[in-house]
Amino acid sequence: MNAYATPGPKEPFARTTIERRDLNPEDVLIDIKFAGICHSDIHTGRDEWGQASYPLVPGHEIAGIVSEVGSGVTKYEVGDRVGVGCMVSSCGTCENCTAGEEQFCLEGMVGTYGGTLDGKPTDGGYSEKIVVDENYVLGIPEGIELDAAAPLLCAGITLYSPLNHWGAGPGKKVAIVGMGGLGHMGVQIAHAMGAEVTVLSQSLSKQEDGTKFGADHYYATSDDATFESLAGSFDLIVNTVSAQIPMEKYLSLLKVRGALVSVGAPSEPLEVPAFALLGGGKIWAGSMIGGIPETQEMLDFCAKHGIGAQVETIGAEDITGAWDRVVASDVRYRFVIDIATMAD
Amino acid sequence: MNAYATPGPKEPFARTTIERRDLNPEDVLIDIKFAGICHSDIHTGRDEWGQASYPLVPGHEIAGIVSEVGSGVTKYEVGDRVGVGCMVSSCGTCENCTAGEEQFCLEGMVGTYGGTLDGKPTDGGYSEKIVVDENYVLGIPEGIELDAAAPLLCAGITLYSPLNHWGAGPGKKVAIVGMGGLGHMGVQIAHAMGAEVTVLSQSLSKQEDGTKFGADHYYATSDDATFESLAGSFDLIVNTVSAQIPMEKYLSLLKVRGALVSVGAPSEPLEVPAFALLGGGKIWAGSMIGGIPETQEMLDFCAKHGIGAQVETIGAEDITGAWDRVVASDVRYRFVIDIATMAD
Repeated sequence: MNAYATPGPKEPFARTTIERRDLNPEDVLIDIKFAGICHSDIHTGRDEWGQASYPLVPGHEIAGIVSEVGSGVTKYEVGDRVGVGCMVSSCGTCENCTAGEEQFCLEGMVGTYGGTLDGKPTDGGYSEKIVVDENYVLGIPEGIELDAAAPLLCAGITLYSPLNHWGAGPGKKVAIVGMGGLGHMGVQIAHAMGAEVTVLSQSLSKQEDGTKFGADHYYATSDDATFESLAGSFDLIVNTVSAQIPMEKYLSLLKVRGALVSVGAPSEPLEVPAFALLGGGKIWAGSMIGGIPETQEMLDFCAKHGIGAQVETIGAEDITGAWDRVVASDVRYRFVIDIATMAD
Repeated sequence: MNAYATPGPKEPFARTTIERRDLNPEDVLIDIKFAGICHSDIHTGRDEWGQASYPLVPGHEIAGIVSEVGSGVTKYEVGDRVGVGCMVSSCGTCENCTAGEEQFCLEGMVGTYGGTLDGKPTDGGYSEKIVVDENYVLGIPEGIELDAAAPLLCAGITLYSPLNHWGAGPGKKVAIVGMGGLGHMGVQIAHAMGAEVTVLSQSLSKQEDGTKFGADHYYATSDDATFESLAGSFDLIVNTVSAQIPMEKYLSLLKVRGALVSVGAPSEPLEVPAFALLGGGKIWAGSMIGGIPETQEMLDFCAKHGIGAQVETIGAEDITGAWDRVVASDVRYRFVIDIATMAD
């Protein structure tokens, strides 16, 4: 089948062909309709995180239609609308897998691309089809278009999980730092959970969009007055920015016992004075996507609340350019590849 | 009345006399029997945290007997065994005070020494008597000797609060980092809460004591094998060490969703790679003493379980030398001043 791969860290994408395994009894064959472009595709593809192997077919925000099922499949039928996120397998038996937190599998989850399964490297969603164990396939409810659904499989769950885990809801003041692909999902989800939502963005350039997504307040972090006026305000801050941020200033925005949750990580350590945590019993936590049950819960929640990613659809030949635009923060708010453009 | 004060950051203690206010209706006059020496007395007295004013009478681990009560006092009677901890007042009306977390008073709690109350500097427990609003006085239950009780008012609550808040108990694996004045309280309290307790100390020199206090396991952090063998082990780590520690190594000891709680703070920021939190949904939190209700709960808990500080009692003339020994970690495990030695 056709796929788009990058042959090396600094090389443009080119069309290629890849093989998928024959269906095992528990496998589902999916005709991919849309694949989102996640910033981590770029970090991996450009070998910024190390350990990349080439040619690399990225893509872990996958939405499509089931076209064939293995003999033992019980959850899905041909024609079902389904998605695949960041993982296609895990040990299934460790304490984290059995708790539904497969993303923290003690054996290591198998990434949708760049991982190793049955001794072979995995290829991601920048391709026409994928074969996945039904236990790592999600159902996409009616009511979310497949293009708007694709980014939910990574960006959506990346924000839903910390908002859910740390108690965003009625009466809670939640700040979302950054208004990109992740942040625009966070605003919508936190708003739908009933929280009072504030966006903390570098500038006010996306304020109108933020309000449309459900933000109650919008502040520019380039303005120091923001940190004075919002001191001690928030129950929860979710930081979607992977760059260095002045942690002490952001922690000062938390109420007593409040939590700042990072979902992105700069390559260099952050400097945090312990006093910034002690003085209010404050919390800095990390969060990384979510498990399979929580991802399904997120999709059902988004369908119920009419939430999807705001996407810009591109053809496969434009992937290289789209990556450059993602790095330049020049996308509102997520690129998805129309997989039909890969056809011969 | 007599007291011991340090006249400046590098000067030895000398006996002096101080005044206490006449009793307001809600005030309690306490004959101090024992005052603990806390490392933060030294940081403040030597002006390592800034803002110290001299002469300084430190002491916020106070145990004594009520000798007089104001006309409106309802909680205490003459003869009661009582304690005073790190604060003698707070606004009483903000959301944190009303939640019983006066240590996080939005107006700022009034420190037992070095604070300002009614326009005057507060003097601490290195003195014969103290006058305190009954709402900031704790009852010391029968069953804890007053000398062993004094350090509970700071060291005890400093460990009890994070262990309580973060769920130490049966089935939980808890590590206490550091086996000093704070750590030896943490081991006893965590053990009494029913947790499986591990001490992480620089060396094994205090292992016998640790076992006596209730530690199930004892490891030297100077041995790198400790970090390998304990990787992913703990639900909760309470770090009592105020020096720089390699945070990434300690965070690697947590289970998924585990928490490392700092109760001490080095003067320089700690460097923490966000990846160390993301990869397991891990938590780094701060904790600072505890509120008045939780401090009373802690004292009742300690009495019920027969827990007290292991103390070395000194005369007031030995305070200066004792401070040097605290800095050299040469005390097992807390100095308390026998206030009777201040008499004329």
